[in-house]
Amino acid sequence: MPRPARRHSQKAGLPPGTPVYTGEQRVEEATVSIIDYNETDIHEHAVQDPADCCRYLKRDSVTWINVTGLHDTNLLQKLGKVFTIHPLILEDIVNTGQRPKMEDRGAYMFMVLKMLYRGAGNGEIVAEQVSLILGRNYVLSFQEIEGDVFDIIRDRIRTAKGRIRKMGCDYLAYSLLDAIVDNYFVVLEDLGDQIETLQDNVILRAEPETLQQIHKLKRETVFMRRNLWPLRELVGGLEKSESDLVDDSLAPYLRDVYEHTIQVIDNVELLRDMLSGALDTYMTTISNRMNEVMKVLTIIATIFIPLTFIAGIYGMNFESMPELKWRYGYAAVWVVMILLGIGMFAFFRRKKWM
Amino acid sequence: MPRPARRHSQKAGLPPGTPVYTGEQRVEEATVSIIDYNETDIHEHAVQDPADCCRYLKRDSVTWINVTGLHDTNLLQKLGKVFTIHPLILEDIVNTGQRPKMEDRGAYMFMVLKMLYRGAGNGEIVAEQVSLILGRNYVLSFQEIEGDVFDIIRDRIRTAKGRIRKMGCDYLAYSLLDAIVDNYFVVLEDLGDQIETLQDNVILRAEPETLQQIHKLKRETVFMRRNLWPLRELVGGLEKSESDLVDDSLAPYLRDVYEHTIQVIDNVELLRDMLSGALDTYMTTISNRMNEVMKVLTIIATIFIPLTFIAGIYGMNFESMPELKWRYGYAAVWVVMILLGIGMFAFFRRKKWM
Amino acid sequence: MPRPARRHSQKAGLPPGTPVYTGEQRVEEATVSIIDYNETDIHEHAVQDPADCCRYLKRDSVTWINVTGLHDTNLLQKLGKVFTIHPLILEDIVNTGQRPKMEDRGAYMFMVLKMLYRGAGNGEIVAEQVSLILGRNYVLSFQEIEGDVFDIIRDRIRTAKGRIRKMGCDYLAYSLLDAIVDNYFVVLEDLGDQIETLQDNVILRAEPETLQQIHKLKRETVFMRRNLWPLRELVGGLEKSESDLVDDSLAPYLRDVYEHTIQVIDNVELLRDMLSGALDTYMTTISNRMNEVMKVLTIIATIFIPLTFIAGIYGMNFESMPELKWRYGYAAVWVVMILLGIGMFAFFRRKKWM
Amino acid sequence: MPRPARRHSQKAGLPPGTPVYTGEQRVEEATVSIIDYNETDIHEHAVQDPADCCRYLKRDSVTWINVTGLHDTNLLQKLGKVFTIHPLILEDIVNTGQRPKMEDRGAYMFMVLKMLYRGAGNGEIVAEQVSLILGRNYVLSFQEIEGDVFDIIRDRIRTAKGRIRKMGCDYLAYSLLDAIVDNYFVVLEDLGDQIETLQDNVILRAEPETLQQIHKLKRETVFMRRNLWPLRELVGGLEKSESDLVDDSLAPYLRDVYEHTIQVIDNVELLRDMLSGALDTYMTTISNRMNEVMKVLTIIATIFIPLTFIAGIYGMNFESMPELKWRYGYAAVWVVMILLGIGMFAFFRRKKWM
Amino acid sequence: MPRPARRHSQKAGLPPGTPVYTGEQRVEEATVSIIDYNETDIHEHAVQDPADCCRYLKRDSVTWINVTGLHDTNLLQKLGKVFTIHPLILEDIVNTGQRPKMEDRGAYMFMVLKMLYRGAGNGEIVAEQVSLILGRNYVLSFQEIEGDVFDIIRDRIRTAKGRIRKMGCDYLAYSLLDAIVDNYFVVLEDLGDQIETLQDNVILRAEPETLQQIHKLKRETVFMRRNLWPLRELVGGLEKSESDLVDDSLAPYLRDVYEHTIQVIDNVELLRDMLSGALDTYMTTISNRMNEVMKVLTIIATIFIPLTFIAGIYGMNFESMPELKWRYGYAAVWVVMILLGIGMFAFFRRKKWM
Repeated sequence: MPRPARRHSQKAGLPPGTPVYTGEQRVEEATVSIIDYNETDIHEHAVQDPADCCRYLKRDSVTWINVTGLHDTNLLQKLGKVFTIHPLILEDIVNTGQRPKMEDRGAYMFMVLKMLYRGAGNGEIVAEQVSLILGRNYVLSFQEIEGDVFDIIRDRIRTAKGRIRKMGCDYLAYSLLDAIVDNYFVVLEDLGDQIETLQDNVILRAEPETLQQIHKLKRETVFMRRNLWPLRELVGGLEKSESDLVDDSLAPYLRDVYEHTIQVIDNVELLRDMLSGALDTYMTTISNRMNEVMKVLTIIATIFIPLTFIAGIYGMNFESMPELKWRYGYAAVWVVMILLGIGMFAFFRRKKWM
Repeated sequence: MPRPARRHSQKAGLPPGTPVYTGEQRVEEATVSIIDYNETDIHEHAVQDPADCCRYLKRDSVTWINVTGLHDTNLLQKLGKVFTIHPLILEDIVNTGQRPKMEDRGAYMFMVLKMLYRGAGNGEIVAEQVSLILGRNYVLSFQEIEGDVFDIIRDRIRTAKGRIRKMGCDYLAYSLLDAIVDNYFVVLEDLGDQIETLQDNVILRAEPETLQQIHKLKRETVFMRRNLWPLRELVGGLEKSESDLVDDSLAPYLRDVYEHTIQVIDNVELLRDMLSGALDTYMTTISNRMNEVMKVLTIIATIFIPLTFIAGIYGMNFESMPELKWRYGYAAVWVVMILLGIGMFAFFRRKKWM
Repeated sequence: MPRPARRHSQKAGLPPGTPVYTGEQRVEEATVSIIDYNETDIHEHAVQDPADCCRYLKRDSVTWINVTGLHDTNLLQKLGKVFTIHPLILEDIVNTGQRPKMEDRGAYMFMVLKMLYRGAGNGEIVAEQVSLILGRNYVLSFQEIEGDVFDIIRDRIRTAKGRIRKMGCDYLAYSLLDAIVDNYFVVLEDLGDQIETLQDNVILRAEPETLQQIHKLKRETVFMRRNLWPLRELVGGLEKSESDLVDDSLAPYLRDVYEHTIQVIDNVELLRDMLSGALDTYMTTISNRMNEVMKVLTIIATIFIPLTFIAGIYGMNFESMPELKWRYGYAAVWVVMILLGIGMFAFFRRKKWM
Repeated sequence: MPRPARRHSQKAGLPPGTPVYTGEQRVEEATVSIIDYNETDIHEHAVQDPADCCRYLKRDSVTWINVTGLHDTNLLQKLGKVFTIHPLILEDIVNTGQRPKMEDRGAYMFMVLKMLYRGAGNGEIVAEQVSLILGRNYVLSFQEIEGDVFDIIRDRIRTAKGRIRKMGCDYLAYSLLDAIVDNYFVVLEDLGDQIETLQDNVILRAEPETLQQIHKLKRETVFMRRNLWPLRELVGGLEKSESDLVDDSLAPYLRDVYEHTIQVIDNVELLRDMLSGALDTYMTTISNRMNEVMKVLTIIATIFIPLTFIAGIYGMNFESMPELKWRYGYAAVWVVMILLGIGMFAFFRRKKWM
Repeated sequence: MPRPARRHSQKAGLPPGTPVYTGEQRVEEATVSIIDYNETDIHEHAVQDPADCCRYLKRDSVTWINVTGLHDTNLLQKLGKVFTIHPLILEDIVNTGQRPKMEDRGAYMFMVLKMLYRGAGNGEIVAEQVSLILGRNYVLSFQEIEGDVFDIIRDRIRTAKGRIRKMGCDYLAYSLLDAIVDNYFVVLEDLGDQIETLQDNVILRAEPETLQQIHKLKRETVFMRRNLWPLRELVGGLEKSESDLVDDSLAPYLRDVYEHTIQVIDNVELLRDMLSGALDTYMTTISNRMNEVMKVLTIIATIFIPLTFIAGIYGMNFESMPELKWRYGYAAVWVVMILLGIGMFAFFRRKKWM
């Protein structure tokens, strides 16, 4: 999952501004859908030809164009022409190795983000690159796959829930951002649950698999952290932005998203602390158990070595060994050996070595 | 106790500004109480209907409205309407996963803080979220449970002790803040006592429980630290604030609270140092003891192994072993073995291996 | 490969501004080539006498002069005279121990960079110092060896691919910079591949060679990192530069290079994390294996020591040892010893010591 | 010695500005003494009633009032009235848990510092809180105990040594500050001597006491460090202060104190480095010695185990063991065993295991 | 060599501005020499009486006065009067515990630096304090011992090599600074050579001496680092200085020295990395070797223990042990034991325990 940039090298040598999709193609066909709304009306349909978007640009309503699937660079270049997007921005949209960032291009603002969710197969955390372009009266969103995070916003628009239908494009962009950040909490809590379970179990089941799970969870928190810090910068930059695309009335909402981001970061840091605590506990448990084994075994050996020595003494074949002829010699040796054994055992006990 | 944000995920998808209480309900019923005072008069009573607070808003006296229990979002929304509080602020009040922070909203200032105290049951440090709203002529305070920290302030108002009755709303808000920060010292000293006891005992009783206690105390200092750094920012921000809700005459008092906060942080850092010192001592003690055990046991084994070898020699059944027939052969072997044993013992002693 | 500055000391005592080549001579003869182009025309040829470059300085076209081989300080001083380059700059060009940096000298901008690639022989990462001087209507580039990274740019100029022929000197300098940074991705991915392979194999083949490879890769990431941080500063400085040699229209391109640099740094940091993860795994594997060995061996010894003791007992030569005369004494001892052996084995098993 | 804030909690609940002495009472009775001087005259006497100080306030001469013993809060409050000192400042003077800090109160400047010295009993480093108040024509100093550091300044005033009699209050305050900082060097060198002795001895005498001493010295350096960083801030703040209580001609002197502070910090950092070096050496020595012991013991055991096996062989009671009847069988076995022993010994030697 | 400030404490109590030499006296007698030059003329001679310097002060030529030996505080105070140097500056010159720093005193600039070189005796790195005072038309330099680093500059002045004779006092001061920084490279490369040799040998010769050498080299890099960071500040401050004593034309030269300083720091950091790499390798090698020894020895013991058990069995004296009477019993036991031994050996081999 946390995996260094791939396939960027295939771009080496191409002139700047050439869009090359560097992710894996995850949907069959790239689709474009439009929702156009104001306080009273709402239109929603799929788009075949990007040029069709033109007529929405002239209207005063809020137009949200969502693109799913980034491999069709042809489609994206057409869209780029309609909305006059700089080729370097298009390149960034399809280059999935981007760090979250925000760029104010005057006529529009460009944001690139990571959406995190648990993958279907092995349950690893997967990152999907989502890009947002906020223009005067439109919002463009680009997703790698069909996701359900934006569905909440679509529902809110359709049912006119909350204040979304009364507000402008900036509020829509904020809502999308907020939905993505809120989704981080879902991943975070899932991670938190796993780590708490682990923390409870690590003393009882300090096995190699536990260690592997700790390492896996650690990688996942590192992965979240790597995406969160630039996200914080992005949202902070948006809050401080002086672009006239973002209305002043949006400030408390942006502040709110900013604080959520910090809260997520804070919790990720806490999870990291918990994980290193769990790792320490694991190491101590393993080491204690090993010590315990070695100690007990060494003690057994140590008790029997002097006893065996005594047995060896009376196994000697000297002609004149008076003890051998004593009547209770054999019994006496047994008594001595048993007393010696018990004495050593008691000594080790008192020294708290057992 | 230090536990990542919970139940935030249940909020994912709700429009921003929807208050959802994310803590555990800790009181039966939410109650609202009012203390209204100036230099000469004082009125104190419980409030049934938030709308009743209106009439205090027009007076010139200081009105302190305290809300205990945050689960009744309905009540909070009514209060919010009376005092025209932004929905996002209400959301923050009931979302107990907040980091301490301060927001200047022009008409009022909003502060969210953590009150720390030892829980009744297992004695763990518990955090309660306390929010303060400082308006023109009122202070709103929100608590999760009935606490005794604010009782000191109530007493001071009732008995007109100190200068509180002569001062305005800003001094009241400062007094509440000061009471909360002062309470940190109580928790801190309790923690400090535990750590000092631990530090003294760690050499004598280096047992797994000691380690667990070190880890518990470490988690608690980390927990305090996580709440203190944003608190410092909060108080620092308040000191530097240019809001006209805070009079200039308050500056030395705010500086004082600020320095107390730094003092607490400083002491928490010291406790952290002491704890890692205790952990080092624990580890060294454990490792020394283990080494001691292994060394003594190995030495016993090592002394007896050559002796057993000698006994083995004379246990051989060769026909022509002249020593076996010697008169004092057996005694000679004993002498040799005893001398060898003493010699090895002395050698180990001189080498300081024992 | 990462190796402290060499041969700088031979310069100690020389007056400042004396150019001394501190690298190894890697090409036979220093060569100078010129490409002069505008949107319609292109001239390309080798230069014998640096003075010949003069006539290009008066033209309005873009002139790119590339010098390969830095050991011929005589040639460089001649070039320095033609383009009025400060002696300290010339000294920096040939002193290969430079950190990447940028200097704005008013009439020209000077940049010194490191080009990274895998060496031919042992496959170690090698750094070549590349210097760029961006003047009003010329770009000077200085390379230690003939490289193929700039060939891409040459091709683009010759075939008029992209917008390079339509743009000025600043775009040419940017293109060279971009080509170098793009090349970092190639080295990075190669490094990433090696580290991923290593990560997969480290559990199976935890051998001393694995450790050496980890250390080698670590040194290489450190080496990249040491070159990347000043590179980031360089590109950042270029972006913020207010020199009139760099046109405003270049800003998004420089921003793009800057972000690529950050992306490389980010990935190098990730590789470092992966490497320390691999090192941890290696250490744990080694330690686990060692523990496993010691434990099994100790257990074998521990089982046989009491058994040997029993055998020793009945090897004693007491006259009155009744068991010795029992008919099934011998068989009984065998039974006892086998039961004891099985019992201890079962006990160790249940304790999970085996 | 480094010990978290004590007895602060007894203040929780008191209105701000109530002075409560939080240190241990270390002198019988609080005393107030006055030195009043100008270039020509000097008056010196003890003060019974703080109100007597009034008449000095009107004079133009420099008045230095020194208070020894902080437990008499009554006396302090009277002084506070005479010099119109803010109650919060009085509270800070007696609260010995203060961090070094400086406050500019317009009419006067307040500084709180720590004086360090070796305690009489166990030789631990003890901190005494010293507060200075610099007014228009007076300096107030507050000490917990009678110290000899200020005696140097008193002597210099009495004997008119240096320029102190020619300068104003600010120079007096600077002299007191300088005397305190100079005293840090005494503690520092004493600490340095101990650490150097330790460093030299740690290889020879790596005993548990050495470890304890390392930990003690480490705590002491940490303790110094914790007092030095805020002291540096204090002096730096004083240097940059724009108060008209501090004349510009004092600037080089303040710069000098500032540099001394940095020098002390620098040296404390060096001591820390030396201590962790000593700790590393200690750990390595302990571990080497342990390894040495284990290795030698294991080798002894290993050499004798095969020999004992051989003896065991010829202790068997088979009827047909031809070797037993050989004439030189016994001697042959001895030869074999001795050769085997020497061979193994030589092998271990060659392998450098011994 | 890295050794905390000494003998500073003897100064405690003296009025500020009293010069006390805190180093060891390293030359017999303090000497003062003068070089006075302009583009055409040069005068060079020794000075007996500091007052003689006066006449050079009025001339327009560049006057370089070099003082060797700082113990003659009398001489220094006379010089201080001639050049009106502040007493605190004189104190700094002779206090050899100074950190490198720069002070702009308006009429002159004061710099204190450390010259590093390998000591004659044990080859440890030694620091000599060098102070420079740059005035309107003179440069004062103060050295503890006669050094050869400045001889290069003297030669350049005498032979009029480079531009030094054409430039002013600021260029002379820069040249001295540059000579000192250049000398760092000599020490650095010497250190680098030692570390590289060490790095190559550490696997082969992991002996206690190697560890000591690592620690020695580590202390030396730390020592260099401690002097380099303030040096960087010094040179950076000089570059940014707005004093009119430093001409603008000097800017590129100062920039150059600044970059050299950073280059040295960079290389020292690299050496530190290499050293900790070497330490890791050392530790791993030691631990591997120890493990190897323990493993082989344990295996030998483990193979022989079961064999000795078998021998013990047939050493028992039971009357009815049928095996003892078998004709090939003895041979059979040998076969069993050899097979068992080989079997265990093979098993350990296959498990890769040997």
